[in-house]
Amino acid sequence: MDAISVIRTKRDRGELTAAQIDWVVDAYTRGEVADEQMSALAMAILLNGMNATEINRWTDAMIASGERMDFSTLSRPTADKHSTGGVGDKITLPLAPLVAACGVAVPQLSGRGLGHTGGTLDKLEAIPGWQAALSNDAMLRVLEDVGAVICAAGDGLAPADKKLYALRDVTGTVEAIPLIASSIMSKKIAEGTGALVLDVKVGSGAFMKDLDNARELARTMVRLGVDHGVKTVALLTDMSTPLGLTAGNALEVRESVEVLAGGGPADVVELTVALAREMLAAAGQTRIDPADALRDGSAMDVWRRMIGAQGGDPDAKLPVARETQVVTAASSGVLTRVDAYAVGVSAWRLGAGRARKEEQVQAGAGVELHAKPGDTVVAGQPLLTLHTDTPERFEYATEILSDAITIAPTGTTFEPTPILIDRIGPTA
Amino acid sequence: MDAISVIRTKRDRGELTAAQIDWVVDAYTRGEVADEQMSALAMAILLNGMNATEINRWTDAMIASGERMDFSTLSRPTADKHSTGGVGDKITLPLAPLVAACGVAVPQLSGRGLGHTGGTLDKLEAIPGWQAALSNDAMLRVLEDVGAVICAAGDGLAPADKKLYALRDVTGTVEAIPLIASSIMSKKIAEGTGALVLDVKVGSGAFMKDLDNARELARTMVRLGVDHGVKTVALLTDMSTPLGLTAGNALEVRESVEVLAGGGPADVVELTVALAREMLAAAGQTRIDPADALRDGSAMDVWRRMIGAQGGDPDAKLPVARETQVVTAASSGVLTRVDAYAVGVSAWRLGAGRARKEEQVQAGAGVELHAKPGDTVVAGQPLLTLHTDTPERFEYATEILSDAITIAPTGTTFEPTPILIDRIGPTA
Repeated sequence: MDAISVIRTKRDRGELTAAQIDWVVDAYTRGEVADEQMSALAMAILLNGMNATEINRWTDAMIASGERMDFSTLSRPTADKHSTGGVGDKITLPLAPLVAACGVAVPQLSGRGLGHTGGTLDKLEAIPGWQAALSNDAMLRVLEDVGAVICAAGDGLAPADKKLYALRDVTGTVEAIPLIASSIMSKKIAEGTGALVLDVKVGSGAFMKDLDNARELARTMVRLGVDHGVKTVALLTDMSTPLGLTAGNALEVRESVEVLAGGGPADVVELTVALAREMLAAAGQTRIDPADALRDGSAMDVWRRMIGAQGGDPDAKLPVARETQVVTAASSGVLTRVDAYAVGVSAWRLGAGRARKEEQVQAGAGVELHAKPGDTVVAGQPLLTLHTDTPERFEYATEILSDAITIAPTGTTFEPTPILIDRIGPTA
Repeated sequence: MDAISVIRTKRDRGELTAAQIDWVVDAYTRGEVADEQMSALAMAILLNGMNATEINRWTDAMIASGERMDFSTLSRPTADKHSTGGVGDKITLPLAPLVAACGVAVPQLSGRGLGHTGGTLDKLEAIPGWQAALSNDAMLRVLEDVGAVICAAGDGLAPADKKLYALRDVTGTVEAIPLIASSIMSKKIAEGTGALVLDVKVGSGAFMKDLDNARELARTMVRLGVDHGVKTVALLTDMSTPLGLTAGNALEVRESVEVLAGGGPADVVELTVALAREMLAAAGQTRIDPADALRDGSAMDVWRRMIGAQGGDPDAKLPVARETQVVTAASSGVLTRVDAYAVGVSAWRLGAGRARKEEQVQAGAGVELHAKPGDTVVAGQPLLTLHTDTPERFEYATEILSDAITIAPTGTTFEPTPILIDRIGPTA
């Protein structure tokens, strides 16, 4: 077995054998297959595709590269959620305690942000005292005691994926559905969750810009989950507009707490409850309606205990950026578009995200929305507030917003895109 | 400008701009673009192609990465030949002195063998005393005094190509016509020859297995040459059967000397004379027929002086392998096939070639043919003699030959493929 013959098979539109896939993933993880060989293979996969058998085996090989976790000792069933990432996507924060409050344990291994979408860990680190790192034992203890845990994924799960993802990131080979699906699912399957709900986002602020690709990714991942014994379902959700009214770390924590307190923006509540229902159903727990657990404060109780278990103070004042700048409406009329990608890049430029892994994020930086598509606006009214500790970034952050907002003449009929676009179940 | 955006352009089937090509080739040569980025780009080029404008610019960028030579001070016109490589392809050895004997200078910068095709320098190094390395000044002196020189290409010509070729070799991206054409032509154009004849081989022992690809490569190279002011023509020639009756270093030198002495196998003579006529015509020298220069000994005179100028003794006994083994005909009939690729691999396994750059080759190792397609053979008669200093390799070397020879029943009508398949001129 050698790298060149594996590359040639895929280059020439052949099907990779199980032995080829097992070998190349293992040899790459061990450093025997070089980065320049794997990137050529990744490009061939991106351009020539993989069939379901190949994707399954590739995922198995990624799982086999590391350890597997086991939640079978827990007294409750488990369900996990994965989002493909979007602007203002803080859903994990209210969702994990909400589902736990309804009797299903949520082990949420999360990452940091890179590029225009934020990272769940970056958001929670805005809470004074909160620590992302937990040992596997500590994680299991929090999961048993509190019912929900959000922490950094250890290096032990699918190390092949970690290495391959970093390579794809610098070689223009991120956008390959077989590799995206196996990257996400190998970690979730290795993690050992019993049920999994996927939030596959589509639109300008998402990784998948069009519905067909998003649907194919969702179907691929659902099939992978089911084939590996994980009850998996996917929701296709809109990401043409930022989710909620905030994009930024402390800003999104604040909004998440509002949702847990029974308030918050309608789209965030709707998506949180929809995902919670799917997770509970997949875990076989349908007695409690999650909407009730938001109203009665039980989700908020779990949130406070979950944050406290990792050293965070749920009552501490959240960091606030030193400077703000307001973007106003250029005309009166109906707001029809607030582009998610532009808002995400703007928040990132303000300091909420990082361009390189080693960079620090600003806890208080980000963008606050004062209106959403469908709202009537008046010329000169505030549409956005930009927050940063480094006001020299305002110019760079507003540049991308120049084409991001569309206001139609007063009286225009406009129907905003629904947040829930489609549901892909195991039989789809 | 960054590597990922260049990769994405080609990945998404776009046309690379001149600025993108200039930047990526230069940045790769300087080490700013990483190997894993260039290999992803090479795979995208292989699968999505480049148009004529892109190939021209890519070639210019490769030339610009190094120095250019200048033969304009010579008293004679220059013509060079390049073969895409084949089994038993010793043509450079008789051809260079033959063309020089007819009044045109031949600066032949050559390489070593890797894989199943031999290298011209490895062959000449079988001659006791002969040295491949010459300074540019020494090369020009030999060229002026003798009229022909065969030596190692310096590191100064198209260093981008050297780095890129080594990368393509390990990443399954060798077989991209735009990259093959620009690799070959960048060196030939930088070398500064006035005329160039390309021997594009097609068949099992060649790099190009089918005629369509070989023709496309030939057309691409001829166009590149003409666009850069080099009079260029290509011959498409057969490589389904080994050229001549030998594959191996000293074995091929012996056969070349036979040709220079007015004898030698008919196919080697035919191809040598045909290429010589093209080179002389391209250099504007048509007074002398090269067939005469083989007969009258003038080509042999140049050969002796050319070998002597690089320390070689043209009268020295050539190395002979310590052991031989004979492969006989399994049946009587008409020999219809002696597979070039299998013979090349067999010679390589016997020690005539190398698997890694640092390996030494055996001067005496190789395969000798006693019959060629079209010949009538009798069961038990010798078909091949294998030569090696390391007899433990016989088993490994004969393994590949098991399916390499076909003998049709006596009386079968068989027409061997002609050696000259087609000619691609500047207007083709």
